[in-house]
Amino acid sequence: MPTDEMVDSRMDNGASWTSWGSTRPELNRTARALLGDALGTLTPQRALAVEDAELAPSRLPTAAREALVAAVGETAVRDDAIARAEHAGGQSYSDILRRRHGDTSEAPDAIVVPGSAAEVAEVLRVCTEHKVAVVPWGGGTSVVGGLTPIAGGCVAVVAVDLGRLDRLLSVDHVSRTATFEPGIRTPAAEAALAAHGLSLGHIPQSYERASLGGYVVTRSSGQASSGRGRIDDMVLGLRMATPRGELVLNAMPGSAAGPDLRRLVLGSEGTLGIVTELTVRVRPVPEATHYEAWVAPSWEAGSRMMRRLAQDGPKPDVLRLSDEDETRFSLAMSGTAGAKKRAMDTWLRLRGIHGGCLIVIGFEGGAADIRHRRRGVRRVLRADHAVPLGSGAGRSWEHNRFSGPYLRDTLLDQGVLAETLETATTWSQLQGLYDDVCAALSASLIRDGRPPLIGCHISHVYPAGASLYFTVLAAAQSGGEIEQWAAAKEAANNAIVAANGTVSHHHAVGTAHRDVVTTDLGGDQLVGVAALRAVKEALDPAGILNPGKLLP
Amino acid sequence: MPTDEMVDSRMDNGASWTSWGSTRPELNRTARALLGDALGTLTPQRALAVEDAELAPSRLPTAAREALVAAVGETAVRDDAIARAEHAGGQSYSDILRRRHGDTSEAPDAIVVPGSAAEVAEVLRVCTEHKVAVVPWGGGTSVVGGLTPIAGGCVAVVAVDLGRLDRLLSVDHVSRTATFEPGIRTPAAEAALAAHGLSLGHIPQSYERASLGGYVVTRSSGQASSGRGRIDDMVLGLRMATPRGELVLNAMPGSAAGPDLRRLVLGSEGTLGIVTELTVRVRPVPEATHYEAWVAPSWEAGSRMMRRLAQDGPKPDVLRLSDEDETRFSLAMSGTAGAKKRAMDTWLRLRGIHGGCLIVIGFEGGAADIRHRRRGVRRVLRADHAVPLGSGAGRSWEHNRFSGPYLRDTLLDQGVLAETLETATTWSQLQGLYDDVCAALSASLIRDGRPPLIGCHISHVYPAGASLYFTVLAAAQSGGEIEQWAAAKEAANNAIVAANGTVSHHHAVGTAHRDVVTTDLGGDQLVGVAALRAVKEALDPAGILNPGKLLP
Repeated sequence: MPTDEMVDSRMDNGASWTSWGSTRPELNRTARALLGDALGTLTPQRALAVEDAELAPSRLPTAAREALVAAVGETAVRDDAIARAEHAGGQSYSDILRRRHGDTSEAPDAIVVPGSAAEVAEVLRVCTEHKVAVVPWGGGTSVVGGLTPIAGGCVAVVAVDLGRLDRLLSVDHVSRTATFEPGIRTPAAEAALAAHGLSLGHIPQSYERASLGGYVVTRSSGQASSGRGRIDDMVLGLRMATPRGELVLNAMPGSAAGPDLRRLVLGSEGTLGIVTELTVRVRPVPEATHYEAWVAPSWEAGSRMMRRLAQDGPKPDVLRLSDEDETRFSLAMSGTAGAKKRAMDTWLRLRGIHGGCLIVIGFEGGAADIRHRRRGVRRVLRADHAVPLGSGAGRSWEHNRFSGPYLRDTLLDQGVLAETLETATTWSQLQGLYDDVCAALSASLIRDGRPPLIGCHISHVYPAGASLYFTVLAAAQSGGEIEQWAAAKEAANNAIVAANGTVSHHHAVGTAHRDVVTTDLGGDQLVGVAALRAVKEALDPAGILNPGKLLP
Repeated sequence: MPTDEMVDSRMDNGASWTSWGSTRPELNRTARALLGDALGTLTPQRALAVEDAELAPSRLPTAAREALVAAVGETAVRDDAIARAEHAGGQSYSDILRRRHGDTSEAPDAIVVPGSAAEVAEVLRVCTEHKVAVVPWGGGTSVVGGLTPIAGGCVAVVAVDLGRLDRLLSVDHVSRTATFEPGIRTPAAEAALAAHGLSLGHIPQSYERASLGGYVVTRSSGQASSGRGRIDDMVLGLRMATPRGELVLNAMPGSAAGPDLRRLVLGSEGTLGIVTELTVRVRPVPEATHYEAWVAPSWEAGSRMMRRLAQDGPKPDVLRLSDEDETRFSLAMSGTAGAKKRAMDTWLRLRGIHGGCLIVIGFEGGAADIRHRRRGVRRVLRADHAVPLGSGAGRSWEHNRFSGPYLRDTLLDQGVLAETLETATTWSQLQGLYDDVCAALSASLIRDGRPPLIGCHISHVYPAGASLYFTVLAAAQSGGEIEQWAAAKEAANNAIVAANGTVSHHHAVGTAHRDVVTTDLGGDQLVGVAALRAVKEALDPAGILNPGKLLP
């Protein structure tokens, strides 16, 4: 039986109640000036401490609680205020704002922390019997409302925190696969693999907090997706506990034995079961890495370069293009100012670039392979008049690759609305999608003639298309912050669907995209939705698994 | 309204009733000697002409027939003996044998040849109303019983021949995608694309006969899968008619909007609906192609080279390794005999190879890219003591890449049991799977101390594992041919499942693997099977779509 402290430590994902990290990066003078100019007067906001939050009493019936204790032990069923408050939603702007305001309406009635796959199965059995809804909880980093404790037709909601299922179970060196429990966070997974000379190489911005299981059920894609692929491509086998029994899909490199059921689990967002084991593709730790930055003369030219590299290669492992506004903002944030900024502007101006769009390129692998690919990439970029900024700027991006969410903490304190959203489409439709989403966000968030700051980047490229990732900054509307963003998000959602974008390229559906996901799931005749509903009813007849998520 | 001749020409896939092609390649003296030595006395077999086959009366009720005629027109509903007999099963050894014996028990009651997606939908509506089972029919090349007209609970079975849905609908040059109707055969698809300077590059052995739609619903994989990927990776969007309505999945490069429903259609084998439109990834016609052959000193060493190239690259587009028996047999078939064979043996022996395993490697792309990859591949092969045979031997493989099924016609005439089967697993389990399948086939087919000839090759490699493709030759047991192979197939199936192989790497499930597919579909608790059954019931409540296939 684990002690309270042991369970606590395994639930701890490093984030605090209302912030991503324990440190707040300070904005430099350039960034402050840029924000002030663009957004006008800001009203600083403060966050309530978790101890000051008030909580509704737990609705978990005593009989259900006792059965859960019998399943996982007393210390692994938590309904103290702190544990419940800390599981009140994920990391979307709205989730964080609610908690900053001391609003704990999204707290589950209890947290259950199973210690084995068998305990997960038993928890599902108990919850089915007692009609208690289950929100599977990995790293707690959902930005689409995937952790919102919706009861559906159930009497209460428990979060099933997978923090104790955090082991590397086995490594197959010959086949280059590794089998993990689902609750392991990426740094721990990489550390365990590094002891074998191996690496997973899945590096989303949530790297420090998110869990492997979470990546899988939300169809995550990392910053090195050009080289490593989406998590979809990395999952070779898995086990999933469902109220109906266990789904076991052995690691298989390729098969034509019916539909690939791994792909039904990928993106299922906890609505079909809880993944208890994952076998993923791993690689030797790369011999070398190299990052470099370039500037494209325009978004259009930069997009064309991305497309050429994605379609004809050579493919870097990391490939990103920021639009002009994001480039300007990134340079300000990174402290590229004063003499340094003037020198860079001169360097670019002499080469015909005014403003320009930042390109970041990363390579991993053997030294000779990297040299070969760099040469090829350089040819493509130079042919379209991109200008090199060198490897220093590339390393600076690498150094700051996880800084976004920390920066958001700072911005929220200062009264800035700061949120991101993302989509993807084919290359021929990408510019239209870009224009329409920018226009929709601007129209929704403009105040007193002052439009929001919108930056965008391409960070995942495919032969047929690419993702678009938008960052939005505006003056938060004090007292109406949540409604302000909800309206903007709705406008963006509608623009995305109308422009043939997917409602999410790598954040998932959750509640944020649930009501606009119909096109992605097979169209207006709801055939795809009917298929997914049928699977859910077959596997989860009592409807306990993550109600209110994914399905419209 | 199309004429009879128009419909006939669109149903014609080039095969005859009992043979793959209209020509029979002759066996050379070496091959005949090798076969005679290995298999002993053979009893030549003859094939009945389609005109001599007797057919049971069609069970299609008049009202259903009239409704189908109303849906697609009189000329597009066929129940004449020839059309029915020519749709009596696919291209498995058993299917062909049955037809050679004049057994038409597997003929559908009628053939319906819709001319549009709307007509396909209407056919499904009519068949649902009249409780008529539907076998979707693409190129007619299933080797796993996917075309067997099982009525299930229905009153009759119609084959829905998609031969009239054979157009290239549109090309998106920027995104490098093309949208096709499902019934188009690969040569026609490539010809249509070539007019745009594009190519699909999906080249399975059934290339000349199979349809694009068939590839998709059976999860096909082509000979250039190392470079181009499986058909799974090529499908970006699709439309599927189901009794419940139309499933529309727009072309999307990547998404996290719920489970990827394309992957539910891939491998669905006509049990969920009929695909009416496909958007696939295409590429420019390669600037150059290059094939070359090598000999590995042993199967073990050759497998290791395959693994190295799959895991660390550089990856050729085609990558194949034959075991010693297949190498011996291939060389005999290709007429490498007499002085030529002696010279080759000497060349190899001087380099330490006795027997040896043939490696075929192919490259497609730009000349510089091919040069670079060839250099890298050469290093890997030489490091493990493979010996080059040059590009002549590679071109000879390319020239004969579609010859297998023609050769089978010849062998069947001579009284040889000739069939293939295939599987895949992870690299660490590959040798065990190979050994166990060989042993199972040998034990089942040995007669009077004479084992069958079993050849095997690796032809699809992945970082985590590879496929194994077995060719089996034995003296056919006159009068009991079908039972003879059924017993061997059952033994192989069981060996595959026991050795953690998939029951099919690229042939699909059909009826041949239906009763051993449980492990691939999620294991003994039947959770995955329940999920698929639930989808089927939701989309096809009357159970008309390809009954008796795929699901155990």
